[in-house]
Amino acid sequence: MRDLPFDLQQTLAQRLGPDGWLTDADSRRRYGEDDSRRWALADAVALPRTVDEVVAVVRACRAHKVPLIARGAGTATTAASVPFDGGVVLSLARMNRIVALRPADRCAVVEPGVLNEALQHALAPHGLFWPPDPSSAALCSIGGNLATNAGGPRAVKYGATRDNVLGLVAVTGAGDVIRCGGAYTKDATGYDLAHLIVGSEGTLAIIVEATLKLAPRPQAQAGLRAFYRDAASAAAAVSRIMARPATPAMLEFMDRSAIALLRRNGSDVPDAGAMLLIEADGDHDTLPYALQALADAAEGDGLVSLDVAADGAARDRLWAARKALSPALRTIKPGKINEDVVVPVSRIPDLVAGVEALAAEFDLPIVAFGHAGNGNLHVNIMYDDGDAAETARAQAALPRVFALVLALEGTLSGEHGIGVAKRDYMAQAFSPETLAAMRAIKAALDPDGILNPGKVLPA
Amino acid sequence: MRDLPFDLQQTLAQRLGPDGWLTDADSRRRYGEDDSRRWALADAVALPRTVDEVVAVVRACRAHKVPLIARGAGTATTAASVPFDGGVVLSLARMNRIVALRPADRCAVVEPGVLNEALQHALAPHGLFWPPDPSSAALCSIGGNLATNAGGPRAVKYGATRDNVLGLVAVTGAGDVIRCGGAYTKDATGYDLAHLIVGSEGTLAIIVEATLKLAPRPQAQAGLRAFYRDAASAAAAVSRIMARPATPAMLEFMDRSAIALLRRNGSDVPDAGAMLLIEADGDHDTLPYALQALADAAEGDGLVSLDVAADGAARDRLWAARKALSPALRTIKPGKINEDVVVPVSRIPDLVAGVEALAAEFDLPIVAFGHAGNGNLHVNIMYDDGDAAETARAQAALPRVFALVLALEGTLSGEHGIGVAKRDYMAQAFSPETLAAMRAIKAALDPDGILNPGKVLPA
Repeated sequence: MRDLPFDLQQTLAQRLGPDGWLTDADSRRRYGEDDSRRWALADAVALPRTVDEVVAVVRACRAHKVPLIARGAGTATTAASVPFDGGVVLSLARMNRIVALRPADRCAVVEPGVLNEALQHALAPHGLFWPPDPSSAALCSIGGNLATNAGGPRAVKYGATRDNVLGLVAVTGAGDVIRCGGAYTKDATGYDLAHLIVGSEGTLAIIVEATLKLAPRPQAQAGLRAFYRDAASAAAAVSRIMARPATPAMLEFMDRSAIALLRRNGSDVPDAGAMLLIEADGDHDTLPYALQALADAAEGDGLVSLDVAADGAARDRLWAARKALSPALRTIKPGKINEDVVVPVSRIPDLVAGVEALAAEFDLPIVAFGHAGNGNLHVNIMYDDGDAAETARAQAALPRVFALVLALEGTLSGEHGIGVAKRDYMAQAFSPETLAAMRAIKAALDPDGILNPGKVLPA
Repeated sequence: MRDLPFDLQQTLAQRLGPDGWLTDADSRRRYGEDDSRRWALADAVALPRTVDEVVAVVRACRAHKVPLIARGAGTATTAASVPFDGGVVLSLARMNRIVALRPADRCAVVEPGVLNEALQHALAPHGLFWPPDPSSAALCSIGGNLATNAGGPRAVKYGATRDNVLGLVAVTGAGDVIRCGGAYTKDATGYDLAHLIVGSEGTLAIIVEATLKLAPRPQAQAGLRAFYRDAASAAAAVSRIMARPATPAMLEFMDRSAIALLRRNGSDVPDAGAMLLIEADGDHDTLPYALQALADAAEGDGLVSLDVAADGAARDRLWAARKALSPALRTIKPGKINEDVVVPVSRIPDLVAGVEALAAEFDLPIVAFGHAGNGNLHVNIMYDDGDAAETARAQAALPRVFALVLALEGTLSGEHGIGVAKRDYMAQAFSPETLAAMRAIKAALDPDGILNPGKVLPA
């Protein structure tokens, strides 16, 4: 927290107008928090409407070495957009136009403030969708999805955000507008700056326009729910399923404690060591074959029971258990540390066994579930945040979870990003030389270090 | 061309041994050329066997500011690995081990010298393949595929090289070993250095190991060959085909002059304005549906005739015309400028019309064919390289092709890369600010500018 230079304030107040430059206490607080429940006071909030206005903000901040924190819809779980050092929060909420829908080129050009769900609505009449489907889709912005390389269950078939971006326009920390990629799906022309900026959490450049790769909407979905004796049997089924040419549209896992939690909360699920939710999408002619093939692959040692949902209503019943899980978590303990770790698919059983051992060691419930086809599991350490001893145990368990994941050749985050929540584990995930290369790239695009300082890279 | 410092020669000769450090004239010439038919004399050729040896070469070259040109199998068409300024050519041919096949994780870990086809052979028993399929697959190395972001016909469904890489180990121009990504398919952890280095043609870092994303082999393929009145009708069919949920496994285009050439050379094809070769892959149960759906989408205004190949032998007959094309090109004129430009799919008709106009203006045959589903067409300017006037006209037509492509919002290269062949057009493809950002990234990873100087980025 600092006082902004008078010159900067005057310049930007005039450039952005009274609804584009906010300095009241409520705005500075409101734009200074995200879904991590952490917050800090911004010194001012900029709400530009154009690329030129973004450039003006970046240049003014650079001239005065003032931190500049780009912000989407504030749904991050990592405090990635919290202005811990004060400075200017630049909200992209008003840059929310869909610039062009290009069905013949299977792409859309959007400003970063467009909400994920708003884009999906606009695409539906064209029979298209944009694959990233984070659970916050109704609230989160495309810009935030791009900044964090957001994912969701569909990523197993369609990829995460980075896989569904064709081009970007962005403003670097030097105040330069750069443009790379475009309305095409194959590109061997120069350095791939677009995909470098995706997932960089506003530390390299501020995304002001994106060309998004779209996918045709399948006619129908059908699904399976399979219960297994243990996580190892379920993981073996995941490998069998992923070895088939037709990749499932979703492939979700729940561990023993997640299933036990659902049973305690009245869900109609059997007592089992692990569960898979498996979904196929496609057309009416071929979907029955896809479903049968997935059922065949789900079959194997350790399978306890298998439910098939060939139509929409049955599918909704199967998915009800998955949807009930997050609310049910709150019934265990008020506090939750939810990390979205990734391991190679073959190491899922080791991850689940390791997490069970940590739950016993720290005497806390730990619930694991998530996107098994990508080896991307949400590990939820549950604790009473009013109980100092439990809070301390939860905080002590967290580094052990990351150490376990890294020992299994996995990585820290699959879809939430690093922010500050996981920043201090980066030095365990990467060698000093690799971190030095990341820092050199940061310095190349943001020479004065004004863009979202203190995020992603450890000090 | 320069004399190498004595100290560098002595250090590396000792470190690499007599079969790892070559200075004879034949080797210096042989490792100094690629498939562009351009060449220059290297001052020495290094053939390391280990990452440590690569590091030793980079550090020695950096200490003496000597150019270091990484080289795969020398099949590039852009002179990307030709040592125009002399220096050390570092061939990765002896780093050719398949480090690990991990079918349960659908990935393989390889050294860069493994040939594309050798990897495919090793994967076949596991029912897996690596999607990039450049026409040089029998000869080219994985390292070269990575350096150029190589593609091929399968990219329309499976993506090009960048889309099929999960992680890299590379040695930067600073001599540091960096490691990013791994045996997992979802990653929101720090900057994506792996995909930045893919396609950078040895100018940012030298790839010494890669974790490759594998795809399950489909049981079968089936295909269609459709002839259209003109390129516009064919391009409309491409958009219809690409709007279907099931993406074809290949979607190749030939223009009027390619068809005329085939007819003159005795191929059994009708007189038409454009041709599409469309292929589906999948399993025996569902392939007939996929084929029917593609046939339905191929149907439309301007369709002249449609052949279906439901089995392997019929498929080979359909593809024979495509395979006959490259040899047939040589029968027109001895000289060929082959550029792999990209345009948005909807702009293919404009590209083809523009190329026809240029052929008339410059009085030279120009043949266009290629990967229509990606908007990635090979534009072949044919000329007599013994005729000075024709050669001059061909060279004058080339910048007009690139200007046309850029006016259509396309880009210079889809799968060959830039090298020196397209380097001087980069300033038309990118803004000065975007090029400056690329240069800053180059300086970040290669602070002394020793890695493949003079390639990709214009002076």
